[in-house]
Amino acid sequence: MDPVTRMKHEVAKAAASRVQSGMVVGLGSGSTAALMIQYLGDRVRSGELTNIQAVPTSFQSSVLANEYGIPLTTLNEVDRIDIAIDGADEVDPQRNLIKGGGACHTREKLVDARAEQFIVVVDSSKLVEALGTTFLLPVEVLPEAYIQVGKALEKLGGQPTLRMAVKKAGPVVTDQGNLVLDVKFDRIDNPAELEKAINNIPGVLENGLFVGLTDLVLVGEVDGDRVSVREF
Amino acid sequence: MDPVTRMKHEVAKAAASRVQSGMVVGLGSGSTAALMIQYLGDRVRSGELTNIQAVPTSFQSSVLANEYGIPLTTLNEVDRIDIAIDGADEVDPQRNLIKGGGACHTREKLVDARAEQFIVVVDSSKLVEALGTTFLLPVEVLPEAYIQVGKALEKLGGQPTLRMAVKKAGPVVTDQGNLVLDVKFDRIDNPAELEKAINNIPGVLENGLFVGLTDLVLVGEVDGDRVSVREF
Repeated sequence: MDPVTRMKHEVAKAAASRVQSGMVVGLGSGSTAALMIQYLGDRVRSGELTNIQAVPTSFQSSVLANEYGIPLTTLNEVDRIDIAIDGADEVDPQRNLIKGGGACHTREKLVDARAEQFIVVVDSSKLVEALGTTFLLPVEVLPEAYIQVGKALEKLGGQPTLRMAVKKAGPVVTDQGNLVLDVKFDRIDNPAELEKAINNIPGVLENGLFVGLTDLVLVGEVDGDRVSVREF
Repeated sequence: MDPVTRMKHEVAKAAASRVQSGMVVGLGSGSTAALMIQYLGDRVRSGELTNIQAVPTSFQSSVLANEYGIPLTTLNEVDRIDIAIDGADEVDPQRNLIKGGGACHTREKLVDARAEQFIVVVDSSKLVEALGTTFLLPVEVLPEAYIQVGKALEKLGGQPTLRMAVKKAGPVVTDQGNLVLDVKFDRIDNPAELEKAINNIPGVLENGLFVGLTDLVLVGEVDGDRVSVREF
């Protein structure tokens, strides 16, 4: 394996090792989360972890959980989520996030916001000084409202683009049947305020700002041939 | 016709008479809005109104518009909405509203919030001193999140109940495929703040608080056998 791939494996493994028997676990989406689900499955199959239940954040994570033998449940059936492990597209020094590159941020926020402990797994390229500097902010919208939500986002200083699909004609459709606007903000100075302002636009389901939710970030780092996992 | 029915017809007719040729019109939902659509159709069929286009707020209003010969379009196709006419479940002295008794408030807010002029048609029983005193606040939620959204609403001081269907087993399902929580607040003192706080709960599509959107209220009144329409 090349160092970058090894680093992703190390981060995923470190996160999976934090799950304990009896826990309700939120399963994130994306490539590092997918590896984490695989390592979690290894621990379940070896008998090291018993009696865990998992809540998926996407169709992707539910399919992987099934494949790796992790018992699934739903948000409406559990009385708590002990731990959620998920990726991110940007992480700022206050551990606020932009998520939604995989168009799963609505269900991810449902799970991650409810977890007692929310652990983010990323590589060091996702660390930024201010949110919005390297990644566009994803906003999930009702299909019938994407034009007018776009105009409302422009009034907030953003430049929205409808996310187009690959291997499908037209736009990306989310697991909930909606569309995604990717919004360029030059720099997001007050993510808490922007999160609320966007969520109050009629036609918006959820935006990709995750503010004040993260408890711990596990950052994978590569230095030449050496890989390591740093906590912050 | 009994006085109450006559009064509803008078209000609906007064509202329909405000539409002019060439306008893009938002068509509300509910019983008074349904009568308004009927009167609007009369004006279109008589040739008095030409070149209007209508944006429906619900399956109900699109069916009625078809029935009465009003040309329909969609939010994504129009560059503006000149006028929207819709009912309400409560109207306070600042013309703020609670809507959503018909589970259509998400699409209603998309249309009503965008209209240059938003006219509300009600009978005088809908006028209240403070919102939340006679009617529960409807909140549209993703089905997978109704339990945890309910808990978040309790933290805001509300008592949520899942709206159950009649002529269908289980809950009411909205035109968008979601569920409705009806939330009891003893009294809503700051509707603008509560609207934003609820819309920021993960899993909420939209709540029934319409704050600062109404331009004019047409109130139908009955005094013995006499009916009248008052503006405020």
